[in-house]
Formats: sequence, C-alpha cells, structure tokens
Amino acid sequence: MKIIVDVMSGDNAPKEILTGAISARHEYGCEVVLVGDSDIMRLIASQNGYPLDSNGVYVEHTTGVIKMEDPPMSIRTKKDSSMVKALNLLADGTGDAVVSAGNTGALYTGASILVSRIKGFRKAAIATILPLASPVLLIDSGANIAVTDENLEQFAIMGSAYMEKVMNVHAPRIGLLNNGVERTKGSQLLQDTYSRLEENRSINFIGNVESRALPYGVCDVIVTDGFSGNLILKYTESICSFVMDRMNEIYSKNLLAKASSLVLKGELESLRKRFCPSEYGGAPLLGISKPVIKAHGSSDAFAIKNAIHQAIKYAKSGMIEHLSGISTDCSESEYE
Amino acid sequence: MKIIVDVMSGDNAPKEILTGAISARHEYGCEVVLVGDSDIMRLIASQNGYPLDSNGVYVEHTTGVIKMEDPPMSIRTKKDSSMVKALNLLADGTGDAVVSAGNTGALYTGASILVSRIKGFRKAAIATILPLASPVLLIDSGANIAVTDENLEQFAIMGSAYMEKVMNVHAPRIGLLNNGVERTKGSQLLQDTYSRLEENRSINFIGNVESRALPYGVCDVIVTDGFSGNLILKYTESICSFVMDRMNEIYSKNLLAKASSLVLKGELESLRKRFCPSEYGGAPLLGISKPVIKAHGSSDAFAIKNAIHQAIKYAKSGMIEHLSGISTDCSESEYE
Repeated sequence: MKIIVDVMSGDNAPKEILTGAISARHEYGCEVVLVGDSDIMRLIASQNGYPLDSNGVYVEHTTGVIKMEDPPMSIRTKKDSSMVKALNLLADGTGDAVVSAGNTGALYTGASILVSRIKGFRKAAIATILPLASPVLLIDSGANIAVTDENLEQFAIMGSAYMEKVMNVHAPRIGLLNNGVERTKGSQLLQDTYSRLEENRSINFIGNVESRALPYGVCDVIVTDGFSGNLILKYTESICSFVMDRMNEIYSKNLLAKASSLVLKGELESLRKRFCPSEYGGAPLLGISKPVIKAHGSSDAFAIKNAIHQAIKYAKSGMIEHLSGISTDCSESEYE
Repeated sequence: MKIIVDVMSGDNAPKEILTGAISARHEYGCEVVLVGDSDIMRLIASQNGYPLDSNGVYVEHTTGVIKMEDPPMSIRTKKDSSMVKALNLLADGTGDAVVSAGNTGALYTGASILVSRIKGFRKAAIATILPLASPVLLIDSGANIAVTDENLEQFAIMGSAYMEKVMNVHAPRIGLLNNGVERTKGSQLLQDTYSRLEENRSINFIGNVESRALPYGVCDVIVTDGFSGNLILKYTESICSFVMDRMNEIYSKNLLAKASSLVLKGELESLRKRFCPSEYGGAPLLGISKPVIKAHGSSDAFAIKNAIHQAIKYAKSGMIEHLSGISTDCSESEYE
C-alpha cells in the first residue's frame, strides 16, 4: 500500500503534514510518497531526524502550492503544485490513494478531472462522518450546491457502499434529509428523490429524516445536497462547542464542580474534539475512481496520520471496484 | 389590548391553553377572547375557579378543531374550528392579535387567506428567535420551501422591523445564511439576494453568514428559505440536548461533579430549555396584516402566557403600520 501525501497544502504545511506521513509509515507500515519542495522537506527531516528516500518513504519534488483562497480551476494553471502533482501521480498508478489538507474546491475539481470519476457516476461528493450517537455519513457535505434526483440517488449508493465496505456497517440505513418524515414533504426534487431511493433495491432506504432526529442514530447515511450538508456540518462544529462553553460556565460557578472538571478535563476535551467532525480523520471524495481523502485544513500531524489510516482502509476495501461494477445506467459524466 | 386565544388547538389543549390565557389576563392586564367549546371551557373554569364572561374574559363558542395532522387547506372545510374562528375574529377587528398552539401549516395558510397579508408583501414567513449568544431571529423558519430573491429581501425587511420595533434592537444586523462569506457563494438565488440586500438602504445588511458563525452573535436576523430554516431550528433543539446529555454522562462519572450537578440542577435545566427555541414564547407570522403568534404545539400554560405577552408587545409595537407604509413596490400578493 502506497499513500501519496500532498505535503505543501494546509494551514500547518509542510511540517505537520510531513510528520503525520512519517508517523503513518511507522504505525501502519504503508509506503508514503511525499509531494512537495524537496529542499524544504529535507530540511525539516534533518532537523527532526526523519528518514527520507529510504525504507518506503519517497520524495516527489515540486515547487508550486495551491493556496486556500485560489479558485477551484487553479488546478489548470498551477500544474506544478503539490496537489496537482499528487493527483497526477495517483492517476498514473504511482500510489494507491491521495491525502491532502488543501483547498477543498481545488481538490474536488482536480480529482474529478485529473483522476476522473467512476464510470456512470455523474458527480463526486464529499462525505463526512458526523460523530453522533452512532457515526452518520453526511453526503454531500459541501461540494455540490445544485443537484438532481439522480445525483442524490448516486450519493445514496456511494454512501451506502462506503459505510458497508470501509466502515463495516451491515446494510447501512439510508435517510433523506427533509423537513418532515412524510413522503410528500420538501421540494419536488426531494419527493422525486424519495421515489428513486424507495425503488432502488440495492440500498436500505428508511425514508425521510428530519434534522432533529440526526443526533440519535436513526440512520447510518444522511443524503442531502452540498448546501444543506454544509449547513449541518459547520453548525454541528460550532453549536456543540457553544453548548459546552455554556455548561462549563454553569459548572464553574460551583467549587465542587470546578474541582471535578479539572479531574474530568481530558474527557471533556475529547468530547469537544469529537464534535468537530472535520478535524479528525478525513473526508473521502466519493465517486472518484481512486481514493482521495480530504483532511481538514487545520490538520496537525495526528489528524494527517488518521487521514492516511482512513485512506488505507478505503483503498483496501474494494469499494470502488464494487461501484464500478454496479454503475451501468449512466453513460456520460460531466467531465468526460 | 384584547388577545384572541385558540383554546382548542395544541397538544395540551384545552386546559393548559385556557390556564395560560387566564394567567396572562391577570399578569399583563390584557383582555382575552377564549375561542372554543364553551361547555368544555366552563367545566374547566369551574373546576379551577377561573372567572369566565367577566372582567375582560370573553368566550366565543365553537365546536370544531383543526387537528395537527390536518392539511393546511382544512381551514376551508373546517370553518367552525377554533383556529378559523379566532382568525376571523381578528380579521373582523374583535381583537388585536391571535395566539394559537395549533397546526402550523393551517395557521399560516389561514392567516394569509383570512386575515390577509400586508399589502405588497408576497409571502408571510414564520420567524423564530434562536437563543444563542445574543438572540437571533431566524426567518423563514419553516413556512416557505420555494422562495425568490424578492421573497428573501422581504423576509429581511420584516425581520429587521420585528427586531427593531418589538425586540428593541437598534439597526438590527441582517445576515444571509450561506455556505461561505464571499458574495459569490451559494446558488444564483442567494447571489441575487445578496445584491438586493446590499442595495436596500432600509436595512443594515452585513453580508453572508455561515452556519458555524450563528451561535456567536454575529447578526440579529438570519435570512433563509423555510427548508434551511427548518433544518437549523430543529437541529438546534436536538443537538443541544444531545451535547448536554453527553456532558452530563461525563460529569456523572465523578462523585464530586455528580453532587454538584444536583446543586446546579435548576441552572442546567434552564439551559436545556433555552436551547429549545420553539418551546418558549411563540413565533410571529410576519407579513400578516395583524399580529398572529404561533405557540409551540406542546405549549403548557406558562408557554401560552409568554406567547400572549409576545402578542401584546407585537400589537403595541407599530411594526405592521410601519411595514404597511414602506411597501409600495409590489402591487399584488398571492391570495389577493
């Protein structure tokens, strides 16, 4: 297993990305291809005693970087960037998966164009695990603002395959995010999607799911467009932190509670991190013909190591081969 | 001030509604018109020692009820229902405002048709206060799934007027809910709305607001369609309760903390209630030509009393007269 790592992208690049990649090499035994400025990478490596160019650690030199504020199509103009080079290496078969903490729009567009989508799947989607009562895969969590009922059906198929093959959930329960549980709720698009999902025998559709039910483990996959998905993802991160702050204020008024909160500090911090879904592990770009994992922009070495672990599981799962086998109903996709 | 109360609608009708109305009569000095089955209301009143038909408490007898599961247009077929009668009394000038804990769709449709909208306002919207770092008015919080940029602009105007005239917020900051802060973010509809809001000199538009910023008091009014608004409203209620449960689990592992949580029980419960925005007070139906307040379906007497208090403030505020004066740009509305 060889994981291609975009070392130059992300808020904490290159040092944290490089460190995370080396840790993953040690912990999981995977080979890593480090894509970025080799002078910089060698300097960091020598300062920290990391081995480069040996023992399953490879360096691919390139000098450019796609910045967080660059437009998605900068993948066309910044061909020497670490992200574009990483995606091209994946497309060429030099490695089994890409991990990048860079610009989401550019990674999504680059993966769709340079690596290409699975035949028959019209759009790729970003899938993110929400760490609620049980893990819920939110798909799409931000890539596609405008979708069709066919797109949403394909998101359901991809999300189901990911939860089954990568996360080992048997017959994942698929819910459609809507403003009521009745089949007549929501826009015409959602009503049409409901019919498609209901008729699709390859997935375990359980019906519409309201946002109020999400925390309580009623489904394993929640299907929605990228606008609503983004609303839920970002709101989850901030409202959970906000509620914890208010509770801590109450507990800090009482001396007993204040003392005990010091004892419980570690557990409280873990809970806070748990509710920041995009901070931990990474989000797979589903529908791409090879595994691409988006790590959070602010990833540290630990988060990058986790994202690489997820990339390994994804690459080993056989999920993409499974999807390639079932998708014969759509002949064209957007960038082909 | 005379408030018309739909006594027969809601999960806890008629007793809690009646009790809340009588309490409001005592506490705020308003007159109340109790609409419902007079035999039932008199029985409850005699059992509890409430005065009816005297001292500013009036009874309007009717036997029908619109149920929670009835379709919105049941206001056409259930003309003898307490909700329809209450709305007709408002339209006739028998009272100054209506409070109902009944079926939201029916109340919205009934208010639009029977009471009518403010001239020039094409759609009414449900506005709900989210009790975050500072109160944020979420408009629309569920009535209109399909909206135009003109509708969203009018929601902004109505929300601004409500926060200024009823909630006493000076120059309310208006945010547009979007998946990024840049003006080019989101659908064409949202980009067009951004331009309209920016050009509208009667409101204090601060730009796009992401869901992650909502808890932190960045705006006083958040403008969105009823689908996204409903997502946020219902998710707020459940995710906050979910986070509190997880924190309580951690604190209950420690004896000191467990002891202190008993001392702090009252404050913790208040916090939980705070995060259930639709439980407290009521949501005004903005854009209707007279004040209509939707109380939560599960309202108890205390919540009804609060909703009546809100109705009084709304009726006294002069907000509707203000909106009637400024809306001269649209000549027709949907039901006229």
